[in-house]
Amino acid sequence: MKTKPKVHPEVGLVMGSDSDGTLVAPAVKILRDFGIRYEVAVISAHRTPRLAARYAQQANRRKIKVIIAAAGGAAHLAGFLAAHTTLPVIGIPIASRALNGLDALLSTIQMPAGIPVATVTLGSAGPVNAAILTIQILALHRTDLAARLQAYKHSLKEKVKKGNIQVQSLLEKIHE
Amino acid sequence: MKTKPKVHPEVGLVMGSDSDGTLVAPAVKILRDFGIRYEVAVISAHRTPRLAARYAQQANRRKIKVIIAAAGGAAHLAGFLAAHTTLPVIGIPIASRALNGLDALLSTIQMPAGIPVATVTLGSAGPVNAAILTIQILALHRTDLAARLQAYKHSLKEKVKKGNIQVQSLLEKIHE
Amino acid sequence: MKTKPKVHPEVGLVMGSDSDGTLVAPAVKILRDFGIRYEVAVISAHRTPRLAARYAQQANRRKIKVIIAAAGGAAHLAGFLAAHTTLPVIGIPIASRALNGLDALLSTIQMPAGIPVATVTLGSAGPVNAAILTIQILALHRTDLAARLQAYKHSLKEKVKKGNIQVQSLLEKIHE
Amino acid sequence: MKTKPKVHPEVGLVMGSDSDGTLVAPAVKILRDFGIRYEVAVISAHRTPRLAARYAQQANRRKIKVIIAAAGGAAHLAGFLAAHTTLPVIGIPIASRALNGLDALLSTIQMPAGIPVATVTLGSAGPVNAAILTIQILALHRTDLAARLQAYKHSLKEKVKKGNIQVQSLLEKIHE
Amino acid sequence: MKTKPKVHPEVGLVMGSDSDGTLVAPAVKILRDFGIRYEVAVISAHRTPRLAARYAQQANRRKIKVIIAAAGGAAHLAGFLAAHTTLPVIGIPIASRALNGLDALLSTIQMPAGIPVATVTLGSAGPVNAAILTIQILALHRTDLAARLQAYKHSLKEKVKKGNIQVQSLLEKIHE
Amino acid sequence: MKTKPKVHPEVGLVMGSDSDGTLVAPAVKILRDFGIRYEVAVISAHRTPRLAARYAQQANRRKIKVIIAAAGGAAHLAGFLAAHTTLPVIGIPIASRALNGLDALLSTIQMPAGIPVATVTLGSAGPVNAAILTIQILALHRTDLAARLQAYKHSLKEKVKKGNIQVQSLLEKIHE
Amino acid sequence: MKTKPKVHPEVGLVMGSDSDGTLVAPAVKILRDFGIRYEVAVISAHRTPRLAARYAQQANRRKIKVIIAAAGGAAHLAGFLAAHTTLPVIGIPIASRALNGLDALLSTIQMPAGIPVATVTLGSAGPVNAAILTIQILALHRTDLAARLQAYKHSLKEKVKKGNIQVQSLLEKIHE
Amino acid sequence: MKTKPKVHPEVGLVMGSDSDGTLVAPAVKILRDFGIRYEVAVISAHRTPRLAARYAQQANRRKIKVIIAAAGGAAHLAGFLAAHTTLPVIGIPIASRALNGLDALLSTIQMPAGIPVATVTLGSAGPVNAAILTIQILALHRTDLAARLQAYKHSLKEKVKKGNIQVQSLLEKIHE
Repeated sequence: MKTKPKVHPEVGLVMGSDSDGTLVAPAVKILRDFGIRYEVAVISAHRTPRLAARYAQQANRRKIKVIIAAAGGAAHLAGFLAAHTTLPVIGIPIASRALNGLDALLSTIQMPAGIPVATVTLGSAGPVNAAILTIQILALHRTDLAARLQAYKHSLKEKVKKGNIQVQSLLEKIHE
Repeated sequence: MKTKPKVHPEVGLVMGSDSDGTLVAPAVKILRDFGIRYEVAVISAHRTPRLAARYAQQANRRKIKVIIAAAGGAAHLAGFLAAHTTLPVIGIPIASRALNGLDALLSTIQMPAGIPVATVTLGSAGPVNAAILTIQILALHRTDLAARLQAYKHSLKEKVKKGNIQVQSLLEKIHE
Repeated sequence: MKTKPKVHPEVGLVMGSDSDGTLVAPAVKILRDFGIRYEVAVISAHRTPRLAARYAQQANRRKIKVIIAAAGGAAHLAGFLAAHTTLPVIGIPIASRALNGLDALLSTIQMPAGIPVATVTLGSAGPVNAAILTIQILALHRTDLAARLQAYKHSLKEKVKKGNIQVQSLLEKIHE
Repeated sequence: MKTKPKVHPEVGLVMGSDSDGTLVAPAVKILRDFGIRYEVAVISAHRTPRLAARYAQQANRRKIKVIIAAAGGAAHLAGFLAAHTTLPVIGIPIASRALNGLDALLSTIQMPAGIPVATVTLGSAGPVNAAILTIQILALHRTDLAARLQAYKHSLKEKVKKGNIQVQSLLEKIHE
Repeated sequence: MKTKPKVHPEVGLVMGSDSDGTLVAPAVKILRDFGIRYEVAVISAHRTPRLAARYAQQANRRKIKVIIAAAGGAAHLAGFLAAHTTLPVIGIPIASRALNGLDALLSTIQMPAGIPVATVTLGSAGPVNAAILTIQILALHRTDLAARLQAYKHSLKEKVKKGNIQVQSLLEKIHE
Repeated sequence: MKTKPKVHPEVGLVMGSDSDGTLVAPAVKILRDFGIRYEVAVISAHRTPRLAARYAQQANRRKIKVIIAAAGGAAHLAGFLAAHTTLPVIGIPIASRALNGLDALLSTIQMPAGIPVATVTLGSAGPVNAAILTIQILALHRTDLAARLQAYKHSLKEKVKKGNIQVQSLLEKIHE
Repeated sequence: MKTKPKVHPEVGLVMGSDSDGTLVAPAVKILRDFGIRYEVAVISAHRTPRLAARYAQQANRRKIKVIIAAAGGAAHLAGFLAAHTTLPVIGIPIASRALNGLDALLSTIQMPAGIPVATVTLGSAGPVNAAILTIQILALHRTDLAARLQAYKHSLKEKVKKGNIQVQSLLEKIHE
Repeated sequence: MKTKPKVHPEVGLVMGSDSDGTLVAPAVKILRDFGIRYEVAVISAHRTPRLAARYAQQANRRKIKVIIAAAGGAAHLAGFLAAHTTLPVIGIPIASRALNGLDALLSTIQMPAGIPVATVTLGSAGPVNAAILTIQILALHRTDLAARLQAYKHSLKEKVKKGNIQVQSLLEKIHE
């Protein structure tokens, strides 16, 4: 069930439908870039509920540390998994056309007391932020990751600086 | 698990929290008035997921015909049950303060293709409508219920007519 | 008024405008695949209210068991029909551009106490879910349908599993 | 069906439930103050649909000129009446708790092309504005009403001026 | 200021920006089809406020009977005109991209007590409904218009019937 | 029209209704505390439009520098004034019950290109922020005000620090 | 800055205003019950930005592992802290009256790519879920906490069961 | 950091990402047309918070008078800068796809008491209005600018008049 089966994944990235594959790709890329052992699976809270329950129940035993779940509409996936585990579960709400993603956002985040889902940005920044949040959690006990997070944060700064130069020349061109 | 244990309930009325008890009482009253065999249970999709799964999986075998589920917030209960059964599941979204019930409404209704939840009114009419919808379904094969539904519909008309008289005298009083 | 006139339709699928035809096609396909006798009609609550009233009033006598109604904007069609019958009425809210379908969703679902509309998903899953909900209701007294629903539910699982494989290879390709 | 039965009412003020009586009272007061012949009725689009249809169909013959309809939730009343008449229909959306009145507003105003509902303010100004809009329409052929509308508009100005003085002294008191 | 200057226009159709021209064209077409004397003007509540005030103040003297105002964003145009006249003012909210038209809808309809704006559908049905509402008002004293409205209403029915046939053949084609 | 008539007010604080008096009092208090010459007036865009137009047109000549306008519902007041002046106009949206203030917020801020309204917080912070923004603008050419703003900003910090101590003891009490 | 100064807090619970003290108390209670070393502070992103920056920058050095931030309105606190650290930051959106908390929810969660805030439930479940999520993260390397989380999860189940009994007797009483 | 480095900029136009460059171009054009000395910079509240803090802290010393900040999503930029300065800060909310800009609007405007952000239109009018508001503030002490603002306001009127002619001929063409 993994892209390049990995021994002992630390992170389980689950999505509700294969149509979300392209969307969550940036999360996969970041996990890979940071050298995180991960697995990816399509599991649906509504279509494969037993599989979903089993996945969450066994995650701890399988030494998974963080579960990321991406889903749209009445996005129950993250909450469903959270109901079956005490591992941290990160939810990525996926916007569909009809309600601009408000349904996925509220379905993911409005969990009852005692069963949290750590919900991240609705929109294209969501998968990136789910991956970074995952690494921030893992980095609490891995100094190498902490250092790489610092470098990543620095690279964000550099990108802003480069953007600065591009904007200057863009505005020059537009107006002159 | 029933109020006055009934042999072979036809309807399972499930709520996510005991705090919803007063809210769903009107549904219970209507089911009772129509002589429907029902049971009531507090089952949480997030706190007692295994119980919830088992309840839905066994409902068919237990000859339950319709499941009604009331929940608020990221209201996954109805969808969770629908994932584990092919019986019709009716969802009652319960409004909480923070978002006026929009979260419960969207979490209940925005189910993925293939796993419907028959969602009813957000607000005080919700439990009543869940009960009536249930009876409409059961009445498809019970002519006595069909007749009683006609009578119920007639009583709604009578109430409007009485309301008419009350409004007339109210407005007389206000203005004179 | 039927596509291939059928003797004694069990299901009446009504839409408010012919422009909704393509949208509700998936519902028609599912009803047909399950061997349900159905009829399709364009009836408008606002443009042909008498026809709409007559349709709902006669549905019971014509042995129709479930009415499905699809409409957008101030989507009164389902509620209008529900006002004239005691049969279960399923509402499909159709999104228009201006308000992302919020108008259709609220107009369909927020029915007063005593006149329920069983509302399903706003968006492309809506017609599918209306059809499946209809079959779930009919299956309460037809064991053949109940068996087919189980098979359908199983096919949803299979699709998720296939999606799993596709996502794996997609992510492999993207990143390598 | 009238408060003080009037011969030949020009305006029919209809509400969906007697519980709206107090809310629409300001509209009744204004109609009375302007000497408009009106009648008040509780008619429900969903509970008494035939009565509603008949009311709208006969309104023209009964020399009614404007219909005002107040309703909440999936507020179909105004649209229902508009479907059965070519008289101008004014809609007052009534806010209920669950969705702050957004449901009533959208259900009343989002009518399909060809069947308008002249919708007025959601909130306490709604009944007042429905009455004034009615009188503006009637005043097109009654110069006495046009003059009274001018006087009414002038009185609004005077009230603002008085408010000015009150605010001044209020702010003096608060701060000194 | 008129398309084909007309002597004594009965209806003033005002829009906030020339970019709304194509959008309101259906209203113009209907007014013309019904033989209504109308004029069209671009007047902005914010860019040409004095012109707007003068237009509304003089409308009555110029024998205009109904003002239609179309605007988007913080759509003040209809309310601005209503503030300066006692004629009925019909508001067409125009949707812009950022907020799906919710801004225009609320800015147009939420008028204070005493200054109504008769607001119509947000979306493509808006201009049509503004024109029909206008004609409904004018028809109160012109029996020829009343008869034409009946015919128009009949034509809406015919269109639904035709749509019926088209949908039938569409669904035949899709599925066979 | 002023509370304690002041010679040459620099700031005109206008509200749409005397019922907003208590709400805007904090703005008055801040202006007074900073020694700003101000005047307060109730002026309605819809009920006293000529007064509103005149007020804005003469503001510049009267040496007013900033206009603050508070209004609710279809809150046109700030935009109306902005249409008649080139002075900076600050808008305070006032929440009413029906739509939680969303109507006032959008009506105030969504101004067309070229006629800005500087809109501040919806809610109790609004009047405070309108006053502070006003002083920030005036302080651009008055060093005494700039110094006082620094002191004010410092006082906000001090309040946070005090709050810190209060929270500590609160939490001690709650839990022990 | 701590309630009962603790050596080496693992968790920093920060709130934007002392008025949030009562609201976040349940989070403090849970942290204490689980024996987590924590500190509580009132720090405002807008009123004490330097303190906020310093707090986040030094958190890592001070061996803090998780930061929880609660704020309302344009709730920047969690995002502000996240910008200055690579530790996981959990955001609790606090609802204010004007917009039902939608402002706090969106301001907290819609972070740009690379700077995640793990946002939890809007409403009373928020502080509880922030605390539990924190413990889930800490439990990844402390087996004692993992065991206690299991016990906590079990206690949630027990509460549902008790609720079940209460609801049964409640409904008995109501209806008999 | 400026487009054509200018000595002593009066206005700092800051955006959160270089992808906003094209969007804010109209603001740059207006500032240039009015002869305002400005600088443009890409600074991110979340990616370059120290730079952002320093920029705001030094703005006053650098004789900047107004800061304009454009950002999307959890748009903290304007509020972040406002926290570090007592200069007037104007916020331009930038709409992203997921939530139609509601997140940016609320994150920018809902500032706490004492730290205002002068927020302008969400949508394409935003940058224009930010620039004009800036000039309105600067014009309080520069009579040349005040005169140019009058001319600009006049040009808006002229554009409306031209639009009038275009609409007339457009509607002629459409209908004839």
